[in-house]
Amino acid sequence: MDALRVALCQVNLTVGDLDGNVETMARALKEAEAADAHVACFPELGIAGYPPEDLVLKRGFVNANRAALDRFAALTGDTVAVVGFVESREDQLFNAAAICHGGRVVGTYQKQLLPNYAVFDEQRYFSRGTEMPLWEIAGVPVGVTVCEDAWQFGGPIPGFGAGGARVILNINGSPFYAAKGQVRERLIGGLARETDCPIAYVNLLGGQDELVFDGDSFVCDAAGTVVARAEAFVEQTLVVDVVPGPERPVTLHVTKVTGPTSPAAPAPAVPPVRELSHAAEVWEAVVLGTRDYVTKNGFNGVVLGLSGGVDSSLVATIAVDALGADKVHGVLMPSRYSSEHSVTDADRLAEALGIETRTIPIEAAHASMLGMLAESFEGREADLTEENLQSRIRGMVLMSLSNKFGWLVLTTSNKSESAVGYATLFGDTAGGFAVIKDVPKLLVYELARHRNALAGRELVPESVLTKPPSAELRPDQRDDQSLPPYEVLDPILELYVEDDRSIEEIVAAGHDRATVERIVRLVDLAEYKRRLTPPGPKLTTKAFGRDRRLPITNRYRG
Amino acid sequence: MDALRVALCQVNLTVGDLDGNVETMARALKEAEAADAHVACFPELGIAGYPPEDLVLKRGFVNANRAALDRFAALTGDTVAVVGFVESREDQLFNAAAICHGGRVVGTYQKQLLPNYAVFDEQRYFSRGTEMPLWEIAGVPVGVTVCEDAWQFGGPIPGFGAGGARVILNINGSPFYAAKGQVRERLIGGLARETDCPIAYVNLLGGQDELVFDGDSFVCDAAGTVVARAEAFVEQTLVVDVVPGPERPVTLHVTKVTGPTSPAAPAPAVPPVRELSHAAEVWEAVVLGTRDYVTKNGFNGVVLGLSGGVDSSLVATIAVDALGADKVHGVLMPSRYSSEHSVTDADRLAEALGIETRTIPIEAAHASMLGMLAESFEGREADLTEENLQSRIRGMVLMSLSNKFGWLVLTTSNKSESAVGYATLFGDTAGGFAVIKDVPKLLVYELARHRNALAGRELVPESVLTKPPSAELRPDQRDDQSLPPYEVLDPILELYVEDDRSIEEIVAAGHDRATVERIVRLVDLAEYKRRLTPPGPKLTTKAFGRDRRLPITNRYRG
Repeated sequence: MDALRVALCQVNLTVGDLDGNVETMARALKEAEAADAHVACFPELGIAGYPPEDLVLKRGFVNANRAALDRFAALTGDTVAVVGFVESREDQLFNAAAICHGGRVVGTYQKQLLPNYAVFDEQRYFSRGTEMPLWEIAGVPVGVTVCEDAWQFGGPIPGFGAGGARVILNINGSPFYAAKGQVRERLIGGLARETDCPIAYVNLLGGQDELVFDGDSFVCDAAGTVVARAEAFVEQTLVVDVVPGPERPVTLHVTKVTGPTSPAAPAPAVPPVRELSHAAEVWEAVVLGTRDYVTKNGFNGVVLGLSGGVDSSLVATIAVDALGADKVHGVLMPSRYSSEHSVTDADRLAEALGIETRTIPIEAAHASMLGMLAESFEGREADLTEENLQSRIRGMVLMSLSNKFGWLVLTTSNKSESAVGYATLFGDTAGGFAVIKDVPKLLVYELARHRNALAGRELVPESVLTKPPSAELRPDQRDDQSLPPYEVLDPILELYVEDDRSIEEIVAAGHDRATVERIVRLVDLAEYKRRLTPPGPKLTTKAFGRDRRLPITNRYRG
Repeated sequence: MDALRVALCQVNLTVGDLDGNVETMARALKEAEAADAHVACFPELGIAGYPPEDLVLKRGFVNANRAALDRFAALTGDTVAVVGFVESREDQLFNAAAICHGGRVVGTYQKQLLPNYAVFDEQRYFSRGTEMPLWEIAGVPVGVTVCEDAWQFGGPIPGFGAGGARVILNINGSPFYAAKGQVRERLIGGLARETDCPIAYVNLLGGQDELVFDGDSFVCDAAGTVVARAEAFVEQTLVVDVVPGPERPVTLHVTKVTGPTSPAAPAPAVPPVRELSHAAEVWEAVVLGTRDYVTKNGFNGVVLGLSGGVDSSLVATIAVDALGADKVHGVLMPSRYSSEHSVTDADRLAEALGIETRTIPIEAAHASMLGMLAESFEGREADLTEENLQSRIRGMVLMSLSNKFGWLVLTTSNKSESAVGYATLFGDTAGGFAVIKDVPKLLVYELARHRNALAGRELVPESVLTKPPSAELRPDQRDDQSLPPYEVLDPILELYVEDDRSIEEIVAAGHDRATVERIVRLVDLAEYKRRLTPPGPKLTTKAFGRDRRLPITNRYRG
């Protein structure tokens, strides 16, 4: 039996960049054509970019996305193209796939299952599709589906199989979290087996605000085995000869797109690319998310404060991988409380990374601010106010450099700090992109060690990885004076934030009640701070931001 | 025919405050009982507070809300109580109404239409109810519905009427925007007429983060005429003798709650309270939203910068109405560019309002920051960087006072500025609550004049209302040097932001193309700034924030 040659076009697109997206997809289409693919698959809402959010509520945008689809379809010849777009029909909007061939849109399929949980809000925009069209491509009856259609019970894929489909093409905008690749393959493999039909799964690539799309496209055969897998985190056009599932009576309506043909020669077999380790895939995700936020928003570089601590050291290293050392500008801002080793460690890091630094001591502004506030603060003890002041002066220095040179300020708070509010609003949270906001502190260390190992040398100095964490905002300050050790804190946070467990459940899991109650209270009270934190890449199953929407005004604890 | 005596309990509840909400509702229930009401109606999700957002995803919270409902039900005797709560049934959650009587929950109704647009995300949490129960109360067959059930075509109210209901009780969490009261009454009136059945509409009161619930509860008769209306923006238990609609065959399942009785004497007729003018209702909404954010989050006062401009003058006036003059702290922060009249005007305002002020000139920090940055900025022209610096020093002063004294910082940017990004990130946007973020500049003036007229004297000095707006961040600066006059800007912004019109449509409405294109570009590019703006009360049909969700990374214009 002849195979259906499918090109999975894993491309990096940009929300709202209709012309740019058509251009990027046209380039991949040419590669698919050069490989004699019968059909080339592009990501979900590829024309519009994903997720377009409330752009979809602008009629002008929806019309422009339709015009862009027609321009893309005009480029198609023998090779069929399947691409996502926003379809408007009788006052309803659909998250749809267009089947394009011979210069025009031959037909469309409307997504049936619309995710409205976690980071997804598709029921805000789209109506549910109900039609079950099949497409004959190279003589093979093919079902086209969109992302969530495969993720929940009750989706259309088994029905397409029962109705005659012998290959399923599923186009996706499926955002990354750690280990999601395995989840996807298990799910899609099970569905392929159940349907007795191979499934080609093409995913979007690239960073979009808080989301990172990892690509990681793959094909599984009718037995559910992954037979080809694209490289994650890079653009790729993966061409696979897909062996159709068994022939069966065709009961659904079929549109003939192209008749039987055979490629001149079998496509070279592509053994599935090896999956990445946990640290490696998180590293790639955070680098891609950072690169795309900076470049897609048109910044000519980034600036960050280098404290000599592990968080800023890690962020600088990520930024260099994302953008190149010449685009990364470090600022040392020692205060009266900074230790000698902070400056040494920051210098060693900068040297290892090859980035430019400047040193701007904050003493002058610190002293003048204290003077300005002296009358108001008379007779009061020093407290967090004075600590926050230093952090805010640093934020102001960085924002001033940002304004003057057009650099984006990267903030360096990690997820553990953000969870408990251990950060200064408009101080160390002041900036444009919060690179490691979804990286818990223990993972901060793991990522730094991972990258050092990959480099075969110390990028982040070993001394940074071994000294006790400190904000250095008062003499001899250490994180563990106000927080439990991260080995205790991080597991509690994971249970409370990612798993939505109650105080009782967390205590039952073996944690100290007083500690749990204190941490939960800190997390709840810090919600207002997190609302004012810049976006940063989602890397876990539940990131702060659009993934976790809690009220600020909220009296419930636990 | 005997009337059904309905108490509309328009109460101010707090999200997550299960015990507090039960207590507040118990107090209103006593009032209803004292008035011999047959049934007392409480707001949508009254037990949990509305909207509870992702609290609902915590199983512990849902269980606690059910326990709180049972505690509330235990307080009921002869008077039936209808109250909203989160119902959990077989792994599904419902936005439900509990019918409570004689110390227990007699039955529940599950909301059928779940809004998932604008500020609403109910499909993120809830399943759609399908059951159509009727309740016999005082011998009258009654249908109970929840908010959105009345707002869209296809809701259950006509079906309840056709199935035998003679009174509909609709419980709501319907957030304010200007003139929404009229929209509600037209809609509910039409539905009552269509169903030939009176509708009692009880709405939540109070501020919750970005939302303000105005109460504004009412009853319309079977002809659709409003026969009673509660006062907006205050707690009230409105007792109304509702004349049931015509008797008809009862085909739906009825649960008998209480048999026929008659109140001892007719309830006093309550003529509908007069509706408020536009400025008056916006004023009340912004005052209530501010008061509730500050008090529900436990702040002991507020602090804000007084520049002598109209925005900060208005915010100070709102804060005094919301909290009392003794809770409002003004700070004058003159710079080298501040004009004489700024200080005079701020002083006159403070005196008229009776608030405490202090003066903290920013020159010392300004000079030291310029010195610290001198080497980095060498050879470069002064630009927005130096302007932003002053704004950020002021933000830092206010945040320091906030940290030291526990006062919430009120920011003073208006909607027009926020739209075009005419604000300094971590400068004048630094704070906890953005009081007038949904008030366009022209309305800022209108509100100030409204409040002056109400006071019968100048609270906001006339000179503040007549001088040209300026940020005073460089010599002789005026807003209209970088922006079109607000008379031109505001109408364009309304078309673009609130109405989602395209550039073409706005030009077709008579606006200058170059101006429109420039404004649209400014609005689109400022999205990242708006993400980092504190919450503030929604007052228009589309507020920045949860109401308008646009990507930051976005290449589409117009």
